[in-house]
Amino acid sequence: MKKLINDPSRVVDESVEGFGLAHADLVAVHTDPIFVSRAGGARQGKVGLVSGGGSGHEPLHAGFVGLGMLDAAVPGAMFTSPTPDAIAPATVAANGGAGVLHIVKNYTGDVLNFETAAELADADGIEVRSVIVNDDVAVEDSLYTAGRRGVAGTVAVEKIAGAAAERGDDLAAVTAIAERVNANVRSMGVALSACTVPHAGVPSFELTEAEIEIGIGIHGEPGRRRIPMAPADEITEMLTTPVIEDLGIGGSDQVLLLVNGMGGTPLSELYVVYRTARRILEGRGATVARSLVGNYVTSLEMQGCSVTVLRLDDELTTLWDAPVHTAALRW
Amino acid sequence: MKKLINDPSRVVDESVEGFGLAHADLVAVHTDPIFVSRAGGARQGKVGLVSGGGSGHEPLHAGFVGLGMLDAAVPGAMFTSPTPDAIAPATVAANGGAGVLHIVKNYTGDVLNFETAAELADADGIEVRSVIVNDDVAVEDSLYTAGRRGVAGTVAVEKIAGAAAERGDDLAAVTAIAERVNANVRSMGVALSACTVPHAGVPSFELTEAEIEIGIGIHGEPGRRRIPMAPADEITEMLTTPVIEDLGIGGSDQVLLLVNGMGGTPLSELYVVYRTARRILEGRGATVARSLVGNYVTSLEMQGCSVTVLRLDDELTTLWDAPVHTAALRW
Repeated sequence: MKKLINDPSRVVDESVEGFGLAHADLVAVHTDPIFVSRAGGARQGKVGLVSGGGSGHEPLHAGFVGLGMLDAAVPGAMFTSPTPDAIAPATVAANGGAGVLHIVKNYTGDVLNFETAAELADADGIEVRSVIVNDDVAVEDSLYTAGRRGVAGTVAVEKIAGAAAERGDDLAAVTAIAERVNANVRSMGVALSACTVPHAGVPSFELTEAEIEIGIGIHGEPGRRRIPMAPADEITEMLTTPVIEDLGIGGSDQVLLLVNGMGGTPLSELYVVYRTARRILEGRGATVARSLVGNYVTSLEMQGCSVTVLRLDDELTTLWDAPVHTAALRW
Repeated sequence: MKKLINDPSRVVDESVEGFGLAHADLVAVHTDPIFVSRAGGARQGKVGLVSGGGSGHEPLHAGFVGLGMLDAAVPGAMFTSPTPDAIAPATVAANGGAGVLHIVKNYTGDVLNFETAAELADADGIEVRSVIVNDDVAVEDSLYTAGRRGVAGTVAVEKIAGAAAERGDDLAAVTAIAERVNANVRSMGVALSACTVPHAGVPSFELTEAEIEIGIGIHGEPGRRRIPMAPADEITEMLTTPVIEDLGIGGSDQVLLLVNGMGGTPLSELYVVYRTARRILEGRGATVARSLVGNYVTSLEMQGCSVTVLRLDDELTTLWDAPVHTAALRW
């Protein structure tokens, strides 16, 4: 294992500390327990948004803390759910008196720990709702998950719900928007290589030089099938078609297309995949109205990508376009 | 070799086509010869900025075309200089009547081909100047290079010269600003793994599981030495100290610190390196006034990073802070 780290047990602390130093204009980093909140604290009267999950998926979630997106993010250990004792103070930090929405990717540990933290916050008089993101069409149930996994669609939920909170929607309305995004977003990924969690020291699974895994999870969980390496257009078809069919994308749909890198894939390859995914969508009559291409929900140094499609409506488009100022997403 | 490509001979064309589709609001993609220019064309009266080089370093350069940065970018084949017959029309496209600055990384092929293109443009009545970026302190002379190589410091040259052009500086002034940035910026990189050029099909060099290359070039050119894998803090010291000493960074200096990923390194690791590089700079009394952390000048899927330091003055800081709206850099 070759990694730019000092000590596997310190990598999250040191990385988040570096993140806080680099982005002191945007975020404040809290230690013991570790969480990241907006510099300047919660805006009074605004619904607070909190997300989090295991580390190793950067820039998710800390990279999305800032104006128009999250109020706080809670990084767990690598590929390990954050604990309630970290989520609870993050919830307090995000509270501006209008309640807090937890945005939780659908992994059993995350769901349980956010639930416990919500109870703790409720005991402190903070109203908390939650939305469970489950956009991965690859498999029903999986390692760590009952039901579908939450993957790159989380970026769309956080961006759009964040814009709704920023414009002044109340907690029920922000929650409804987040659920509407989740209901209209689907993803599927592929791994060309595995990744190595620092404290494990060995790859989390094995792929030979000749095979890839279609439907991979962001922690290397098994997907739909292993197949021999194939051209990008064939792989893109295998990712995009299930997403389109699950969503029922058809003639008049306007969509957001996100091609997300898993961390170790060159940007040039992501644009090759984007080109083909877009053609497939357009071949179904859909219009790709918005696009995002890059590393947003990663799996350490895994090579591979995912294709995410969000069916847009006028309001979701407006909220997507609204200003955002975070370390990883800004316009 | 597992890559998300269809055909090694088509990967640049398909990738740039995808890039153009994803960012049609920002850029226009020209084919045969291939180059990327700003959507809407050159602004009359503004100095035009053109850069380019071998592909495989994305988002450099096409990701930096747009308001406040480049007017056109010319991608060559993978790790191969673009040809004069592509640079020349890009120069014409960038010309708003106030002349064009070529920003050229110091590789022999790039320098020669940009020179030839400048002569072609001059014959068309376009005044062209050029700045050669040579920020890599690792080695004097190298594979493909006489003198120092141009690496991640190029981002600072393109950003700051772009802002100078945008505010209305004339060609001599924009050229002087670009040269001032180049004179005050230094970089050094490390590779933990090699990378594979698609048409070659095999890694461009070999590193064992136990060793890393200090001072690597962005095409995998040899650096200063191979050493056993070491903790991130030691590696960061080996990159940052030569940069600081070459620049003569001392007590009252304000600097920009860029920690650049080579393409295959997790963002979490880049922040570990950032944290330590910042401490080293602060230990010398310098103030890290501006920061950038991410994948900006990559080497395909290479694992590793580079540390770049730019000595700032008030004007360079103002120009760095000026608005930029490109695919890869935006504020």
